[in-house]
Amino acid sequence: MNQERVIATYLVETPYSLERAAATIAGEQSTGTFTAVPGETDELKARYGATVERIEALGEMDTPSLPGAKIPVQHDGRFRRGIITVSFPLHNFGPSIPNLLSAVAGNLYELQELSGLRLMDLELPEAFTSRYPGPKFGIAGTRRLTGVYDRPILGTIVKPSIGLTTEQLSILVGKMAEAGMDFIKDDELNANPPFAPIEHKVKAVMEAVERAADVTGKKLMYAFNITGDYDELRRNHDLVVKAGGNCVMVSILSVGLSGLAALNSYSEVPIHGHRNQWGMLTRCPLLGIEFTAYQKLCRLAGADHLHVNGLNSKFYESNESVTRSIHACTTPILGGYTTMPVVSSMQWAGTAPVTYSAVGSVDVMHLAGGGMLAHPDGPAAGFESMKLGWEAAVQGIPLELYAQQHPALQHAIDKYGKG
Amino acid sequence: MNQERVIATYLVETPYSLERAAATIAGEQSTGTFTAVPGETDELKARYGATVERIEALGEMDTPSLPGAKIPVQHDGRFRRGIITVSFPLHNFGPSIPNLLSAVAGNLYELQELSGLRLMDLELPEAFTSRYPGPKFGIAGTRRLTGVYDRPILGTIVKPSIGLTTEQLSILVGKMAEAGMDFIKDDELNANPPFAPIEHKVKAVMEAVERAADVTGKKLMYAFNITGDYDELRRNHDLVVKAGGNCVMVSILSVGLSGLAALNSYSEVPIHGHRNQWGMLTRCPLLGIEFTAYQKLCRLAGADHLHVNGLNSKFYESNESVTRSIHACTTPILGGYTTMPVVSSMQWAGTAPVTYSAVGSVDVMHLAGGGMLAHPDGPAAGFESMKLGWEAAVQGIPLELYAQQHPALQHAIDKYGKG
Repeated sequence: MNQERVIATYLVETPYSLERAAATIAGEQSTGTFTAVPGETDELKARYGATVERIEALGEMDTPSLPGAKIPVQHDGRFRRGIITVSFPLHNFGPSIPNLLSAVAGNLYELQELSGLRLMDLELPEAFTSRYPGPKFGIAGTRRLTGVYDRPILGTIVKPSIGLTTEQLSILVGKMAEAGMDFIKDDELNANPPFAPIEHKVKAVMEAVERAADVTGKKLMYAFNITGDYDELRRNHDLVVKAGGNCVMVSILSVGLSGLAALNSYSEVPIHGHRNQWGMLTRCPLLGIEFTAYQKLCRLAGADHLHVNGLNSKFYESNESVTRSIHACTTPILGGYTTMPVVSSMQWAGTAPVTYSAVGSVDVMHLAGGGMLAHPDGPAAGFESMKLGWEAAVQGIPLELYAQQHPALQHAIDKYGKG
Repeated sequence: MNQERVIATYLVETPYSLERAAATIAGEQSTGTFTAVPGETDELKARYGATVERIEALGEMDTPSLPGAKIPVQHDGRFRRGIITVSFPLHNFGPSIPNLLSAVAGNLYELQELSGLRLMDLELPEAFTSRYPGPKFGIAGTRRLTGVYDRPILGTIVKPSIGLTTEQLSILVGKMAEAGMDFIKDDELNANPPFAPIEHKVKAVMEAVERAADVTGKKLMYAFNITGDYDELRRNHDLVVKAGGNCVMVSILSVGLSGLAALNSYSEVPIHGHRNQWGMLTRCPLLGIEFTAYQKLCRLAGADHLHVNGLNSKFYESNESVTRSIHACTTPILGGYTTMPVVSSMQWAGTAPVTYSAVGSVDVMHLAGGGMLAHPDGPAAGFESMKLGWEAAVQGIPLELYAQQHPALQHAIDKYGKG
């Protein structure tokens, strides 16, 4: 039978054999139940069953990574690790992200046969493109809207995260826009709080953006955090577009992949995808999801920009893992669906070289909050220092050397480079 | 300042002091950034800052639970565990579940200052009731619709999970409905697959349900799995209601809490909340979310029924944890918002006594898939055996004794009781 199939790759750990673990995974998420039931024919199993495609042993451990595994009576005390690939017939769920998740994740994480499970990657058939058209802007569209072509999109995050009045925010944004800044985003903590309703915020910010654009000839891209319930996404998006805004931001784990897909069905501006809460799905190495798999779903659902943490950030994630995430985002899927990786967290001019070497190109959005706004010579100098950092990186000039001719960079090094 | 606040309780593990970890959590998720920024005044911090309310030490470990914690230079080799309570001003985000999540979870799981973090509980102010009216049916409404008052709602899950034609399904449902079954649900793997489109399924199932009701005088409750993207939730819900259906089911982690809240804004029948994928948020003891916290959000968003796994199930979860989840669901919040705990997975008549002792009442939905459908005397006898199991449990009669007078129960014990 020539079926379209979804291919899921898992890292597993089990007190049983890898073969048994793989068969349990395939059975649990397709035709199986704990006891044979009427109607469970061989024909049905052949047509709807998930299939174990590959098993690769990775070694054995003395202790289980997760609690609750059922230890076999004749156990040798070992917990086997391996990479298991399972394929699912697409006709079990169709090209539907919500139902795909129930199949490839579903109850698997709770199985007693496993002491560890992590969804590492997903290969999706073309059929998904019929339901999910993907990002409308991506890298090219974001460059077109910002007018920045030959270097990363550089931007900042409104800080303090929470508490600025719309008037204070408007002044801050105006100052940055006049300095030629490419991009500013709301903090993920700040969407539509009662003390600064989004209607007021959008109006005040866009007035400052347009006023600066009249002077500089360049319109800053502002990502308004429109995170909210379903009806609010629509209302907030329309508010932004009506006011001449050119980007909306959502916390993807707050609105869900379905919320993102719904927004993408009517959005007229790029969607800036923030991944706060992601840590709980990924920090335990033998549980959850690897970003390689998750970012595909985010792109399918329409994220034009996608946060990936930063190199040398304040977070637990290793630079290797961040680099893997960046490469995942820049690897084509489904003949398109490009998304701009967004690097942030404790970034400043000095993280440009390591970021450039990780990305391998300038197709990245590089964001610095305190690393720009708290520059000793002010936010405009902070922006200048970021541009200088990237010039040095791309030309392969050591930062300290380049800074000798460029005071804004030197002052950034003096302030942030002593950590 | 008399502010309404959200109170979040975390289990933390840290190589630093608990005091420092708590301060980092509060700062990260409110006014802080990694370096002082202009505008971060004391007044702003007082008004918008999160506050550490309580710190309770729990002991120390030799090794970190999660990777990536930054070890202090002068480290004593200990990782401190404790319960930390932090309060957030409601006016930072307003009564919005999506933005609440960005605040109480957000980036916290990724902090280098922590080697473990689990959100244990949430206390939400009354203001949330203005945006989220909660379940429309809950326990009372479900009893009214099923006509079952003096015992648990007993039901089954369509098995095989996937692959039955609508005709096969209709025959199975008709048989169960004629036997007087209270409730049947679709498997979470089976929503609207191409091989059995939901329009056909709803029509075929409801014809069987109505036909049986004409004979028995009792209308079976069928939870149609309507999981899908936003537009599909509405369309599928309306299909079910128009056909005379009386329950819809969603995989909450597939549609998101926002998707659930959207569905609840127009639903006319109880919402059966399935929690597949939940394991990845909870199986690592020092990461993710405890169900005690999560179920409150599900109830707020409108789940009338909520899955909690089963006692003695096929999953990793301990009976103690399942019992804690059941009690969480039956503890009143916000002056209402009742939800019916749904016990399932490897259930049969023999799990009635342990379930009764965990629930402490008969206000529970008890589901058996194979444990009813594969009964040696057929599904109707499977249903009968479940009723008998509960009769024995409530009367405190040992199952084996009660089975002496009741062959359906005896045959269930013979088949399922040997595990």
